Amino acid sequence: MEGYRLFLALLASALLLGFLSVLFALVWVFQYREGLSWDGAEAEFNWHPVLIITGFVFIQGIAIIVYRLPWTWKCSKLLMKFIHAGLNTIAMILAIVSLVAVFDFHNAKNIPNMYSLHSWIGLTAVILYSLQLVLGFAVFLLPFAPVSLRASLMPIHIYSGLLIFVTVIATAFMGFTEKLLFALKNYKASPPEGIFVNILGLLILIFGALVLWMATRPQWKRPPEQNSKLQQPNGGTEDSAMTDCSKAEKADVEFNSEAAARKRNLKLDETGQRSTM
Amino acid sequence: MEGYRLFLALLASALLLGFLSVLFALVWVFQYREGLSWDGAEAEFNWHPVLIITGFVFIQGIAIIVYRLPWTWKCSKLLMKFIHAGLNTIAMILAIVSLVAVFDFHNAKNIPNMYSLHSWIGLTAVILYSLQLVLGFAVFLLPFAPVSLRASLMPIHIYSGLLIFVTVIATAFMGFTEKLLFALKNYKASPPEGIFVNILGLLILIFGALVLWMATRPQWKRPPEQNSKLQQPNGGTEDSAMTDCSKAEKADVEFNSEAAARKRNLKLDETGQRSTM
Repeated sequence: MEGYRLFLALLASALLLGFLSVLFALVWVFQYREGLSWDGAEAEFNWHPVLIITGFVFIQGIAIIVYRLPWTWKCSKLLMKFIHAGLNTIAMILAIVSLVAVFDFHNAKNIPNMYSLHSWIGLTAVILYSLQLVLGFAVFLLPFAPVSLRASLMPIHIYSGLLIFVTVIATAFMGFTEKLLFALKNYKASPPEGIFVNILGLLILIFGALVLWMATRPQWKRPPEQNSKLQQPNGGTEDSAMTDCSKAEKADVEFNSEAAARKRNLKLDETGQRSTM
Repeated sequence: MEGYRLFLALLASALLLGFLSVLFALVWVFQYREGLSWDGAEAEFNWHPVLIITGFVFIQGIAIIVYRLPWTWKCSKLLMKFIHAGLNTIAMILAIVSLVAVFDFHNAKNIPNMYSLHSWIGLTAVILYSLQLVLGFAVFLLPFAPVSLRASLMPIHIYSGLLIFVTVIATAFMGFTEKLLFALKNYKASPPEGIFVNILGLLILIFGALVLWMATRPQWKRPPEQNSKLQQPNGGTEDSAMTDCSKAEKADVEFNSEAAARKRNLKLDETGQRSTM
């Protein structure tokens, strides 16, 4: 893999920033706010930023770049699709729970829902994300879609995924702005909580920028399936690729009777994906 | 050009949304706010959203896709670089004036500067945009940079440009949120101004999404320079390409003694650009 060390450095930075963002969200709600509970009060609202940052920012970001981790290139594409879909499903569930928390809190406090730009764009992102997940599952995971449909939808799938990801981050920034203006009477005097959440915003901005860079470098794209077992990130031999992941792939093939047909389709599938990444 | 009609439809939609966004910004400040003036009061602040949306969103968006307009493919790359750099310079000037307006307003009213996430990320975007402009001018417009440097910096230039563009839009969303929460005591009751500015946010979101789609389709990339005179979007002949733009190109070549050397470099230059767009 070209620029393997740089990739590792960027991945480590992204993981660090992602973990730090989740940690900052937890410190925010426990140190500066009312903590977490499910009682219709502020501590229920606090699940909203924690779950959005954990699921809709961090896990979604990892789901976007999971195909690009070079040590997964020896795993079957099908296995990686399951991991990609699984991470996005977890992110989706966390996002929905976080929406329930905020609607529940609003309803308990008689605060209107859906009046802000944050809510309009946030709900749009959640709806588009659900569509993306259902369509992605139907077209790329289930074995029924013709190869030509997969090839023509892949650039749209990739574009929509990245667009939703940046839209979610923009929505989180609006959410921080709203919460700080509602909760801090002295936000303009730069109190510690204001500075802390601003730094959280910067962490997420850099995390997002790293994910976008890693996800769009053509030299870091997963190689076409037919060569994947021969390609090792560290230049190793085919023998050294025979790890648990290869065994998992064999199990996949035995388990899924559609896998062989799907493998025949992968070359064109890859072509579709290559067109934009 | 593959998908010429679709490109035209998306371009027309983007232009319409861009114009509508500027119009909405003007209606916002004249219909719902204090209009425009330069007196240290609210009407001076109002230059901030108007100039950011006009320059930093709309004009920057057009500057990003200007190479992709197929009727410019008969123009020299050098001419298009001047147009790209010129539009970005106009956007930069409008952004700086809009910052002066808001700092001036804050200072006149004794409101602190730089306390919000909006201001932190917004100033970061302006600084990165200035760096991008200066570096882009030095490397891609001035004739001194070696071809290898151009080729290696082009993917970074494209990535940074798109990243700054989405960051600016995210910052505008935070700005809308701040202004509506400061100015509208009844924002939660969805007053007409709140709804109006939320719609402005959606217009900008869709404008940004269209620009990103047009800027990242490989089939809509400007063809390599050596063939550009032969390529016509409507499938016309080389003769029909001899328009004012071709004459302008000839004038370029006569005017600029570096143009010939630059033309020899263009193939590698294009290769660098192709790697990410």
